Amino acid sequence: MDVLISEVGPRDGLQSIAPIMLKEDKMLWIRRAAAAGVREIEVGSFVPAKLLPQLADTAEIVTGAIEIPGLTVAALVPNARGAADAIAAGAHKITLPLSCSESHSLANLRRTHAQVLEEARAIAGMIRALPKERRPHFEGSLSTAFGCTIEGRVPEAQVAGLAEALMAAGCDEVGLADTTGYANPVAVRNMIAILWSAVGKDALTGIHLHNTRGLGLANALAAFDAGLTTFDSSLGGLGGCPFAPGASGNIVTEDLVFMFEAMGVRTGIDLDALFAIREIVANAVGGEPLYGFAPEAGLPKGFVQATQAKKDVHA
Amino acid sequence: MDVLISEVGPRDGLQSIAPIMLKEDKMLWIRRAAAAGVREIEVGSFVPAKLLPQLADTAEIVTGAIEIPGLTVAALVPNARGAADAIAAGAHKITLPLSCSESHSLANLRRTHAQVLEEARAIAGMIRALPKERRPHFEGSLSTAFGCTIEGRVPEAQVAGLAEALMAAGCDEVGLADTTGYANPVAVRNMIAILWSAVGKDALTGIHLHNTRGLGLANALAAFDAGLTTFDSSLGGLGGCPFAPGASGNIVTEDLVFMFEAMGVRTGIDLDALFAIREIVANAVGGEPLYGFAPEAGLPKGFVQATQAKKDVHA
Repeated sequence: MDVLISEVGPRDGLQSIAPIMLKEDKMLWIRRAAAAGVREIEVGSFVPAKLLPQLADTAEIVTGAIEIPGLTVAALVPNARGAADAIAAGAHKITLPLSCSESHSLANLRRTHAQVLEEARAIAGMIRALPKERRPHFEGSLSTAFGCTIEGRVPEAQVAGLAEALMAAGCDEVGLADTTGYANPVAVRNMIAILWSAVGKDALTGIHLHNTRGLGLANALAAFDAGLTTFDSSLGGLGGCPFAPGASGNIVTEDLVFMFEAMGVRTGIDLDALFAIREIVANAVGGEPLYGFAPEAGLPKGFVQATQAKKDVHA
Repeated sequence: MDVLISEVGPRDGLQSIAPIMLKEDKMLWIRRAAAAGVREIEVGSFVPAKLLPQLADTAEIVTGAIEIPGLTVAALVPNARGAADAIAAGAHKITLPLSCSESHSLANLRRTHAQVLEEARAIAGMIRALPKERRPHFEGSLSTAFGCTIEGRVPEAQVAGLAEALMAAGCDEVGLADTTGYANPVAVRNMIAILWSAVGKDALTGIHLHNTRGLGLANALAAFDAGLTTFDSSLGGLGGCPFAPGASGNIVTEDLVFMFEAMGVRTGIDLDALFAIREIVANAVGGEPLYGFAPEAGLPKGFVQATQAKKDVHA
């Protein structure tokens, strides 16, 4: 495959919507996504159940999802305690968010940068203590990297400094996250160049984008052109802000996969099978709007996916 | 300015919606858009009033709009007869669409390619007969250049051949149009390269994109990166397909302008003034949905437009 689409709907999509999805529905979604060719899914977050009832079953979901062959099961962890739970459940990848805006970090996680970095060091130590084959991949996510609603734009040098600090704390990788939809294609390209020069190309391969101001796919294109290869997205753009249809959710997996496949870039995901999952998810979150232009419009006449075309050639 | 945003809402946006907008409302929209900094507006289409009652007042709109200082007033014409009316009304720019898919051309305009090219020659002759200062700019629009719902993908060589034929017929310029939302960023870049090698860079500067499958702004970014400088768009993405919200309209002017301004690319358009026009248009087409992510989400905290920032520097 040419790019890795990391489905974050079961975590980032669900966490902002009220109707609680049943564990069975989540597992059906995850299994169907994996069957459609999705190779990485962020299935939940190890936060206290009281804080986020929607994700209270994350440990059970991880336990179930790791049985699916070929699927990388990722989970978000707010701290070392969550990481311990994620490791115990068998997550293949754990992501610790660090908000580049310190005001946002305090408001959101109630932690300073120094405190989050301390958690990162604790998690890295925990992972090093594991036998090699049980060690999850550990990513530090640079959230609000392009700015936040409290501080506005975050200086690029600050983001680069935090990326270095996360790598020094023991992360395997950092990820770039436009939590608030402040990014634009030029900012994406600049930030990638700055981070690569700070931590090296191997330490930054992925980006997490929101479509808050409609630039989600343009930003994904800019990141792909710059050389990133992992893209977070959410089925149906789930988790969009209810006051403005489509206004705040993650970029839509279906549209993202359609864009890459149309461009000749293989995602490994079958679009028809992906589109078919929408009904399961829509039913399971009753009434919550699903977004996505490609699934509504349908594929262009005569459309052949890159994944399919190149598979045929080698068949 | 770095790019030219050509507002096509009063033509392409309105032509696909049922509620007829009053001439006064159209003029208010056009005046407010011009006041916000929009420098080119396609105000209507010279088709028989019976076929498109929504645009029956195009001649009067052109007559009114050409009084606005600094505004380029464009109109669509289906044939030489429409062009004569457009010229009589005083349009600064006339666009003749030629559907690159001949089946689509027959179904839509009831004309073969040869017949449309004949119209182009007649229009060019008509323009040459005018005194130089009264000659409108004459564009041949390569519609369905990326494919259509009848034929599927249209071969690039066919598009290039038609571009050459339009230029030979006397057009000043050709425009690239993704009428059906079949384009993708790679196809956009390829098509531009092929057309430039066929007709030269000066003969292709603009693109008309739809957001049918969500790739509108990514395609605009690809076209901008490739070197195009004129972008058609519609306020509120007006004219979206009613069966699927947002699914078939033109790219949204507000989001497009936001993207460029955020990238540091000057459009000359004030975003706040542009966003404010939405209410006028929404009221005038009562109930018709307006799209746009940036206006719904609002500008990022501390956001400064490129147009504004660079204006300040030179003030």
